[in-house]
Amino acid sequence: MTEKNKEELSRRKFLASAGGVVVGTMMATASLNLSNSSVDAEGTMEWPWPYKKLDPEVVRKKGHFGYYQGACCYGAFSAIIDVLKDEIGYPYTMMPIDMMRYGEGGIVGWTTVCGALNGAAAVITLIAGEDNYKELVNELMGWYTEFEFPSDISNKYAKEHKFLVNKYKSDEVLVQSVSNSPLCHASVTNWCKESDYASGDSERSERCARLTGDVAAKAVELLNASYDGEFVLKYELSGATERCRSCHAKGKAFEQGGWTRGKMGCGSCHEDAHK
Amino acid sequence: MTEKNKEELSRRKFLASAGGVVVGTMMATASLNLSNSSVDAEGTMEWPWPYKKLDPEVVRKKGHFGYYQGACCYGAFSAIIDVLKDEIGYPYTMMPIDMMRYGEGGIVGWTTVCGALNGAAAVITLIAGEDNYKELVNELMGWYTEFEFPSDISNKYAKEHKFLVNKYKSDEVLVQSVSNSPLCHASVTNWCKESDYASGDSERSERCARLTGDVAAKAVELLNASYDGEFVLKYELSGATERCRSCHAKGKAFEQGGWTRGKMGCGSCHEDAHK
Repeated sequence: MTEKNKEELSRRKFLASAGGVVVGTMMATASLNLSNSSVDAEGTMEWPWPYKKLDPEVVRKKGHFGYYQGACCYGAFSAIIDVLKDEIGYPYTMMPIDMMRYGEGGIVGWTTVCGALNGAAAVITLIAGEDNYKELVNELMGWYTEFEFPSDISNKYAKEHKFLVNKYKSDEVLVQSVSNSPLCHASVTNWCKESDYASGDSERSERCARLTGDVAAKAVELLNASYDGEFVLKYELSGATERCRSCHAKGKAFEQGGWTRGKMGCGSCHEDAHK
Repeated sequence: MTEKNKEELSRRKFLASAGGVVVGTMMATASLNLSNSSVDAEGTMEWPWPYKKLDPEVVRKKGHFGYYQGACCYGAFSAIIDVLKDEIGYPYTMMPIDMMRYGEGGIVGWTTVCGALNGAAAVITLIAGEDNYKELVNELMGWYTEFEFPSDISNKYAKEHKFLVNKYKSDEVLVQSVSNSPLCHASVTNWCKESDYASGDSERSERCARLTGDVAAKAVELLNASYDGEFVLKYELSGATERCRSCHAKGKAFEQGGWTRGKMGCGSCHEDAHK
């Protein structure tokens, strides 16, 4: 136990005995950790919340495990929040991580946005603040659509730690696939077709567990880069999608085709547009 | 000011002067409001968070306004959380509502899941807890896909209060449309095509502001019903989608077509499947 943790525990015990209310913990950790942040008149930590650079590999492993606790959205969200609880304490100790369970399978199985993206985007926004969250979340979304999941690192990690994984316990190196879409539906479908596994197979769950770790780790890499002032926008919309958006996008006139909006790759659903 | 609020303020002043840390507010409100909930050993409010029945019409108006503060996801999320801050206090006073800004336009404009759904689903999960959140969120999602947005109530409200709306200030009764999908992309596109407005027009923004209020109000209606033990599942997948899912769903063998999963209406994207 570190000196800081010892001091926290000591103050916690003091507050518990003095006040009889365990939420005294908040005050203890707050007074230790609020050097870079502020608390407003209502006692709420102001946005954005404090950050210190995290190890993406720690978060990747936590995301993988977290998937088996509460699925993809919870897994990505809790992986980062839990490490920040350890590293920073309050206000992360106050975050109700279970709130994000709904994101499972693109929101209770509807297969809209990938839950790992949903959970990671929430954490990025919490930490990056008004000036930076949009470009960081946009980068995460774009990266996701082009990345071959699960990563080599996650495949290797799962192989090395097969007995630590809660449910699946597989050391199989899983087939990799690109989703071309931020939607759970497309992401799962593309992987299943590449791998010959059904969506209900435990290997598909394990693929999404590894993906959850990969997305959480990427979110931390983006936050770390932003923290260092070294974030560089890499993702660009595909040429095909840019061509569609020259008529069909927010900001275009209705008559021109501006009756829609979006950044998803158009071809993922509209294979035969204008045919 | 109510007696309860006076007592809170008095304790707040005491704690501020005694401890010099404003987060003392948390202890004050916690001790007043935690009759139905508990705080764990780390000082975190256990899931689910406490609830009392809210007026859906108050939340509908707040959602409408909130859209102009931080868009759809923030609007729906903050509409409910803000009322609970007033009604219950801690732990809602601790919730960083800005975290949900990323959900705008289906996550920073990518047009995946409707942000109002995303924000409302998070609040439902926070409050409904492990036993109830899935069926309530599923009902909200299904209801959304079949509802004619904006509601008559929201159209009427905006007309009556045209000078209170932050930006748009329109009293126009807007055209209503059904999305047939939980995706922002489909929801906006269908409405634009019905209304002849472009996605970049302020009328489309106003439509989504009213929709945000409608979704937040529906979430409260579901929570109220669940609180009273009177929640009844109404949404059913369409016959067409059920037919697709007889082969193409989680739990089916790969060879049968189980290489995908989802509950979204299949026809919304796959008009010509098997043709």
